[in-house]
Amino acid sequence: MKQGMLYGVGVGPGDPELMTLKAVRIVREADVIALPAKTKDCVAYRIAKGALEDLDEKEFLYLHMPMTKDPEILREAHDRGAEAVRELLEAGKTVAFLTLGDVTVYSTYLYLHRRLLAAGFKAELVNGIPSFCAAAARLGIGLAETKEALHVIPATYGIREALSLPGTKVLMKSGKAMGQVKRELLEAGCQVFMVENCGMENERVCRSAEDIDENAGYYSLLIVKEADHG
Amino acid sequence: MKQGMLYGVGVGPGDPELMTLKAVRIVREADVIALPAKTKDCVAYRIAKGALEDLDEKEFLYLHMPMTKDPEILREAHDRGAEAVRELLEAGKTVAFLTLGDVTVYSTYLYLHRRLLAAGFKAELVNGIPSFCAAAARLGIGLAETKEALHVIPATYGIREALSLPGTKVLMKSGKAMGQVKRELLEAGCQVFMVENCGMENERVCRSAEDIDENAGYYSLLIVKEADHG
Repeated sequence: MKQGMLYGVGVGPGDPELMTLKAVRIVREADVIALPAKTKDCVAYRIAKGALEDLDEKEFLYLHMPMTKDPEILREAHDRGAEAVRELLEAGKTVAFLTLGDVTVYSTYLYLHRRLLAAGFKAELVNGIPSFCAAAARLGIGLAETKEALHVIPATYGIREALSLPGTKVLMKSGKAMGQVKRELLEAGCQVFMVENCGMENERVCRSAEDIDENAGYYSLLIVKEADHG
Repeated sequence: MKQGMLYGVGVGPGDPELMTLKAVRIVREADVIALPAKTKDCVAYRIAKGALEDLDEKEFLYLHMPMTKDPEILREAHDRGAEAVRELLEAGKTVAFLTLGDVTVYSTYLYLHRRLLAAGFKAELVNGIPSFCAAAARLGIGLAETKEALHVIPATYGIREALSLPGTKVLMKSGKAMGQVKRELLEAGCQVFMVENCGMENERVCRSAEDIDENAGYYSLLIVKEADHG
């Protein structure tokens, strides 16, 4: 019998054309498309559908994760998800789990990867364009040049501590704390760029701390730059 | 007359299949392929050639950058490069400048981008998979999860200062100082991964500080992780 195989596939930040050739091939060849959602109505599905018209002919597996920080509830959900994938792999199927952006950066796929590898199955990571790279390209700016460091900072990191780091700072998922982040950025006098919903229909861009919308959503991303380049 | 257009195109870290659909389309549609090299014998060319067999039918422009840190010599070289591209754009040509990895991360293209935009031409950045994402995928590990920060650190940053940052550290271009970096990593007792020439024929991987080759080359990249995930 054909051996099952699991792929964690980054589909990029929104534009289907930012999928890699490999991601498109892996999705095309997969028997089952696993989604981090309750239904097909999720961003990762819509991106892949934009690159592969006949995606709906596949079998789908929905692995919704509860919105909680409770480690026990999460662990149970991860175990259940891994068990569902395991059954497909044991039946010899190829499973592609779709994830937004890149699969190595803040992806929910990795819990599956570790569990299925530990259970003796083959699993591979397939890269996608990370959201922060796409946001910089959309803005027409570099993230880091020559000697600059690049710091990608989730919302739980202290904003003042983050701003004190040398180099470019990417502030991810600041949505809930945007009001405070905006005040800190204005006080620090940084060069600030923001992209909300990068590559999607409702994309919004701003190029100064003053213009930041304090009610910006979950998929907003701030780029804080050091001095100008020549 | 057709208006000229400049694209900075990230071709990813080495595997032609890691090019995005958009990068392949832009290269296919371009009149002129600009390379950061003296001849076609460069990595970015070989990657694009792997995805586009008839690449050699294009016109080529070679924009070699001198290996110097002298800002005056660099500025002159950048000005000359921008002038060469400007002539092509004025003739109505579409120019795609190929760059390894992603175009927003340590790319030499950005000097062209700024100059040609300032001169009134249209220029766009087209993303590629950054080397550090590809290295993590090759190793089968995540770069950052949930609350972790991700720090991408060039060799000029102090290694001790870098290792004191919370989250994952990616150490880029450590080649020349690899002996010292290895000693610091061993002393700090970090979880360390290294990929040399990721996605290329001469790729090498190691999964502990002990195994780091002090003579590793320019395209080697270290990933220093915090504690294990469950």
